[in-house]
Amino acid sequence: MKDALPSFDDIRDAAARIAPYAHITPVLRSTRLDALTGAELHFKGEHLQRGGAFKFRGACNAVWSLTDEQAARGVVTHSSGNHGNALALAAATRGIAAHVVVPEGAVRTKLEAIEHAGAILHRCAATQAAREAKCADVQRETGAELVHPYADTRVMAGQGTLVLELLQQSAGLDALITPVGGGGLASGAAIAAHGIDPALTLFGAEPLGADDAHRSLRQGSRVTTVVPDTVCDGLRALIGERNLDALREHQVDVITVSDAETIAAMQLLWSELKQVVEVSSATVLAAILQQPQRFAGRRIGVVLTGGNVDLGALPW
Amino acid sequence: MKDALPSFDDIRDAAARIAPYAHITPVLRSTRLDALTGAELHFKGEHLQRGGAFKFRGACNAVWSLTDEQAARGVVTHSSGNHGNALALAAATRGIAAHVVVPEGAVRTKLEAIEHAGAILHRCAATQAAREAKCADVQRETGAELVHPYADTRVMAGQGTLVLELLQQSAGLDALITPVGGGGLASGAAIAAHGIDPALTLFGAEPLGADDAHRSLRQGSRVTTVVPDTVCDGLRALIGERNLDALREHQVDVITVSDAETIAAMQLLWSELKQVVEVSSATVLAAILQQPQRFAGRRIGVVLTGGNVDLGALPW
Repeated sequence: MKDALPSFDDIRDAAARIAPYAHITPVLRSTRLDALTGAELHFKGEHLQRGGAFKFRGACNAVWSLTDEQAARGVVTHSSGNHGNALALAAATRGIAAHVVVPEGAVRTKLEAIEHAGAILHRCAATQAAREAKCADVQRETGAELVHPYADTRVMAGQGTLVLELLQQSAGLDALITPVGGGGLASGAAIAAHGIDPALTLFGAEPLGADDAHRSLRQGSRVTTVVPDTVCDGLRALIGERNLDALREHQVDVITVSDAETIAAMQLLWSELKQVVEVSSATVLAAILQQPQRFAGRRIGVVLTGGNVDLGALPW
Repeated sequence: MKDALPSFDDIRDAAARIAPYAHITPVLRSTRLDALTGAELHFKGEHLQRGGAFKFRGACNAVWSLTDEQAARGVVTHSSGNHGNALALAAATRGIAAHVVVPEGAVRTKLEAIEHAGAILHRCAATQAAREAKCADVQRETGAELVHPYADTRVMAGQGTLVLELLQQSAGLDALITPVGGGGLASGAAIAAHGIDPALTLFGAEPLGADDAHRSLRQGSRVTTVVPDTVCDGLRALIGERNLDALREHQVDVITVSDAETIAAMQLLWSELKQVVEVSSATVLAAILQQPQRFAGRRIGVVLTGGNVDLGALPW
């Protein structure tokens, strides 16, 4: 099953597989943000990953998991930006074709980056159904291997590798928080985290305007009726079925944050950490600021997922 | 003479003096920016220094060079922002008072930071004369020690310490480029650089709208008639007399850049390095992009001086 959850061993294998291509990203600290939250925040700077987002890890693991025969037919995906860019860059490391289906409304600079990385773009409407249909078309026409942005075992395993790295860089963390979109990162991170330390408390941060994971966990079954309405362009995808299983199994506590809270947190990250992170990345700090009592006095791993921002269209 | 040029030994002493308080800042690289310029760029990230700018180095060296008796009367300076903030932070490390004279038109967030650091603010008009007069007033009233933002031996020595660090972090550099304002950094950096490697080529980057150093070097005497008109709020001060001497002695080649070039370079630093650096910091990349033939194929140390930006008033 291509969308089965990866094992902890899959994640360790992925780490070895992507090591020649991916960056080891730094962990950043801020005295001011620690003081503001009362917690000890260890920011994992995946905006400094290749392609400007953690997505390179999953895409790279998928590309280098292919047989030569599969690889020769190329890869295809649908993506609002960072995964498409990551797949294009990963495909380039193996010298194979990448097809990227991009929904309308994607961030301009992200599309430019995908084209710059050498991918073939295919446009479609912004709905989940339209993305998947277009992707299937390209698959039929080219024989390219689908690398789904989050419901793909290889992708989830690749995303989990950042947690292996973080827990080596910052020993003794009490908790971990990641943004939640389709759940590729949140699921891979949960499996990696508990593979190393089953006592780690896991949090997710989800935009209120795309709170399908939060609702799904609360009602006990996958909610697919949410129409995403959030400034967090990287978190508009609905949670995948297996991804949701992982969140449930690993008791990931998903905190919802308003766009206003996220934008304020983004400004804090820019002014205090001096890091250009995209709005989706700021959901994690927004969640900590919203519920400080759940984080105060603890050592928290905070995943900054990406830094691909359209500087001409900032959200404030 | 309080504004004499520091010796190389003064800079080494300063490094030891500030070590307990200052951060060792990272050197950042970018494949894309290297490709764009044809050079190997080693960005010294002083926007990640305490207080968000290299200025903490000079201020801290000055504060910890005082006798206990001098220190007890506090320190005073005039500053459009970063030096004032740095002096306030440095004074706090020694538990002494800091008075900061701030000209009208200074960046709001920088003023807030100075107050937040615990300094006493004194406002004045934006001219050099008004700054100095107000500063003298405060000195007379309080007995505080003047720590001039650039024409001060201790400050120049402190700024030079970042070059000692950079040349340890990135061995074998061919050239170094820093922004030029009052010249505290450019002079300290030149002395430090040539103290280690007399073969290093030295460049400065100066806004066209505040090109007094460039003009002074060309005409062989200090030009004091320039009325600064540039978006680079950190580089509006006129070059100091001794600072100019150092630039001449060390054959610092000052390249002038337009505000438009600087703003474009600032956007590149944000989008490619993912670092929030202030507009003055971008003059260095603007200079390299303007005259690529002078940098191509060489290993260049590039000083990113600060990251204190008013996110509500970006220059594009």
